[in-house]
Amino acid sequence: QGTRDHTPAQAALRDRLLSTVVSCFKRHGAAAIDTPVLELRETLLGKYGEESKLIYELQDQGGELLALRYDLTVPFARYLAMNKITNMKRYHVAKVYRRDNPATTRGRYREFYQCDFDIAGQFDPMIPDAECLKIVHEILSDLQLGDFVIKVNDRRILNGVFAVCGVPESEFIPACSTVDKLDKMPWEEVRSEMVGEKGLSPEAADRIGEYVQLHGGLDVIEQLLQDPKLSQNKVAKEGLGDMKLLFEYLSLFGITGKISFDLSLARGLDYYTGVIFEAVLLQQENEHVEEPVSVGSVAGGGRYDGLVGMFDPKGRKVPCVGVSIGIERIFSILEQRLEASGEKLRTTETQVLVATPQKHMLAARLKLISELWDAGIKAEMLYKKDPKLLKQLQYCEDTGIPLAAIVGEQELADRVVKLRDVATRKEVRV
Amino acid sequence: QGTRDHTPAQAALRDRLLSTVVSCFKRHGAAAIDTPVLELRETLLGKYGEESKLIYELQDQGGELLALRYDLTVPFARYLAMNKITNMKRYHVAKVYRRDNPATTRGRYREFYQCDFDIAGQFDPMIPDAECLKIVHEILSDLQLGDFVIKVNDRRILNGVFAVCGVPESEFIPACSTVDKLDKMPWEEVRSEMVGEKGLSPEAADRIGEYVQLHGGLDVIEQLLQDPKLSQNKVAKEGLGDMKLLFEYLSLFGITGKISFDLSLARGLDYYTGVIFEAVLLQQENEHVEEPVSVGSVAGGGRYDGLVGMFDPKGRKVPCVGVSIGIERIFSILEQRLEASGEKLRTTETQVLVATPQKHMLAARLKLISELWDAGIKAEMLYKKDPKLLKQLQYCEDTGIPLAAIVGEQELADRVVKLRDVATRKEVRV
Repeated sequence: QGTRDHTPAQAALRDRLLSTVVSCFKRHGAAAIDTPVLELRETLLGKYGEESKLIYELQDQGGELLALRYDLTVPFARYLAMNKITNMKRYHVAKVYRRDNPATTRGRYREFYQCDFDIAGQFDPMIPDAECLKIVHEILSDLQLGDFVIKVNDRRILNGVFAVCGVPESEFIPACSTVDKLDKMPWEEVRSEMVGEKGLSPEAADRIGEYVQLHGGLDVIEQLLQDPKLSQNKVAKEGLGDMKLLFEYLSLFGITGKISFDLSLARGLDYYTGVIFEAVLLQQENEHVEEPVSVGSVAGGGRYDGLVGMFDPKGRKVPCVGVSIGIERIFSILEQRLEASGEKLRTTETQVLVATPQKHMLAARLKLISELWDAGIKAEMLYKKDPKLLKQLQYCEDTGIPLAAIVGEQELADRVVKLRDVATRKEVRV
Repeated sequence: QGTRDHTPAQAALRDRLLSTVVSCFKRHGAAAIDTPVLELRETLLGKYGEESKLIYELQDQGGELLALRYDLTVPFARYLAMNKITNMKRYHVAKVYRRDNPATTRGRYREFYQCDFDIAGQFDPMIPDAECLKIVHEILSDLQLGDFVIKVNDRRILNGVFAVCGVPESEFIPACSTVDKLDKMPWEEVRSEMVGEKGLSPEAADRIGEYVQLHGGLDVIEQLLQDPKLSQNKVAKEGLGDMKLLFEYLSLFGITGKISFDLSLARGLDYYTGVIFEAVLLQQENEHVEEPVSVGSVAGGGRYDGLVGMFDPKGRKVPCVGVSIGIERIFSILEQRLEASGEKLRTTETQVLVATPQKHMLAARLKLISELWDAGIKAEMLYKKDPKLLKQLQYCEDTGIPLAAIVGEQELADRVVKLRDVATRKEVRV
C-alpha cells in the first residue's frame, strides 16, 4: 500500500524528469554521494518532531536495530559527521520511506524519490542560501510546470515573533508546526489549535496572527525591521537582516519576481535553524479568475546549522543549507499532461530490427545482429526461428524502431543487407 | 554493518560502471521498470530455498507484513503476473537486501546493487538464452576486467544425472545446492555432505561425482548424448539437445571461446528450471602458472519458467530467462585498480569557476554566474564575499575545473570577462 511499480513508460518519464533535476544539480557543481536505505534507528530518532511515528522500523532479527531512511538530509548530516567533512556540495537522488496515509492521486506515496542538493560549510551569509533558491527557480522553469511562487521565511524571524508575542521558548517548535498548517486551513482554525491544543493564550495567538498573515517582498522586510517590538528582538533582527541580504542576492539572480517573503511559512521539521522555503505551483483555475490557486508544494528546504553537530561526539557544528525537490508530485503532473497530449514516450532506444523475409534465416540474423551489437548499435530481433516479415515490421511500428535491417536469400548471396526506413518504406542495399 | 556510504569518488566510479552495464542492456532493446524496495512478505516466501532466512523483515507496525526485496527476479515475476504481461524484455538496476555475513573486502554487502536483464515470453528454444550469455560476454569485455569464463549448465541435465544415479526426485533440490558448492570445496567434501547430510547412498554419490566433474565444450555434450544411461532419461536428453542448440547460437555470436559446459554448476536458488550460467573472472596468479585461478563469480542467471505462474491465480506460466550482473565485486576490482593507477576521477563536472582578483566584486560575480547557469554552463564560485584569487585558482586545480572566468574592476569597466585556462595559465578577454 502506498508504493507502486513503474511501467516502462513511467520509468522513461521518470528518467527524463530526474535527468532534468540532476543536470541542474551538476550545473551548480555538486558531487553525488550515496548512503544506505537502512540507517540505525538511533540515527533517525528525535530528528523529525511529530513525524517520527511515521518511520519504518525493521524487525529485530539479531544485530543492530534498523530503520528505513525518512529523508536524505539526516543521512547526509550523519555522513558529514562520521567522515569529519566540514565542506561539501552534494546531491543525492534516492528513495525515502514514510508510513504516512498515502494519497497516490496527489502523488503522496510511502516509498518515494527525493532529489536533494545541499551545501555544507562555514561561508559568508546567504550566498549558498540564495543559490538553493536559484536552483529551485531553474528546475521549475526547466520543467515548464507553469507559474510558481517560492515562499521564503526564516526560523529566527518566526522565533522572534513567538518571543515578542509572549510564547515561552519551549513552545516555539510546537507553535511552528501549528503555524505551518496555515497553507491548508484558515487562520481561525490554526488559532483555535494554538489556544486549545498548544495552550497559548488567546492574546498571544492574536498577536501571532497579525504577524504570520503578512507576506510580500522587500517592503514587508523593511516594515518588520521598523516594527517597534520585533526590531528589539535580537534573533528576529538577525533573521530580518539576512532576509534583506538574501533578497539583494536574489535580485542579482533576477528571480525576485517569483519569491514571496511569507511569515506563515514554518515547515514541519525540527532541524531548521535559519532560512526556510517552499515552492508551490500556481494554477489559473480559469482565465477569468484573477487569483491563482495553489496546487501544492513541489520543493522545499532551508538552513539546518545544528544537525551535523548532533552526530559529532564533540558536537562540532557544520552549517548546512539545502533543497529537496518533490519529484512525485511533479511526476504526477507530467504524467497527466503526457496522457492528455496523447504523446507516446518510447520506452526503448533500439535503432534497428534485424529481420528476414524468408524461412531458415536464423543463423544469418544471429550473425548480423551480433556484428551490430559489437559495433555498439542498438539492435533487436524477434526470438522466433521463422518470423513473418509483416510481424517484424509491425514490431518496429509498435515500439518505434526506425530501421529494419533485412537479410534474405538474395541479400545473403549478394553479401548485402537491405536497410528499410520503417516510416517511409524506402529501402537501400548496403 | 554490511552497508556503506559512497563518497563522491566512489559514486562517480559506480556511475561509470553502471552506465556501461545499462548501455549494454539498452543496446539489446530492454525497457526499464522499477518496483518498490518493499514487498509483501508472502511474495518472497518459498522462493529462495535455504537462503530465505536471510530476508530482512519489517516490524509489524500495523497494516501489511513487509520485507525488503532479496533480488530483482522475484519482484519482476510478481510484476508480470500482477499486470498479466506475457512478453517483455526489461532491465532493472537497483539495490537488494540480504542478512548475510558481510565480507566487504570481497565486495559482499548486505545492501548491494543488482543489474538485471530478463526476457519473458514464449519463444523458440535457446534464442533468448543465447542473448543473455552474449550480454554477459559484452559487459565483461566492455569493462576490460581481464580473462573470464562463462560456465553453463542446465537444471534438466542435472536432474537427469540425479535420476540416473538413483536420487529420489524429492532430493533433487538439496542435491543441487550441495553440488553447487563444488566451486568452493573439493569433491571429497561435497561427497561427504551428500552422504552425511543429504542422506544419499555412497554409490549414488560416486556416480554423481563422475558426471559433475565433467566440463568442456560441444565434445562433452556429444559424449553425454551418447551416455547409455543419461541418453535414456527424457529430461536430460531435452536439456542436452537444447545445450547443443545453445552452443550453435553462441558459435554464431562468436563467443564459444569463453563458454564452458560445466556439470558442476548448479546455482543455489530454487526457481531455475532450464539453462543456468555463471561468469567467473580468471586471474593469472603469475605468468609461469599455467592454470588460471578463479576470483569469483561476477554474473549469473538462468531460465525460470515456473516463477511467474506462482504469482498467477490461475497458475498461468510465463517462461523467463535472465541475467544478473554482480556489480559489487566488479566495483571492488575497479576501485582497487583505480587506486593502483593513481588516476583521480573528477567528482563534479564544473566547467568554469567565476572568480575575482579584487574585493567588493560579489555582485558582479553573482550576476555573471547567474548568466552562465541560465545559459546551461556548469559554473561554481566560492561562497565568500571577498575570496583571494590564489584560493580560487587553487580550488580549480583541486577539483579539476578547467576554466576561470575572472571579473575585476578593469573587466567591469571594459564590459569584458577574463577567461583563464587553469592548466596553461593563458588568458583571453571575451
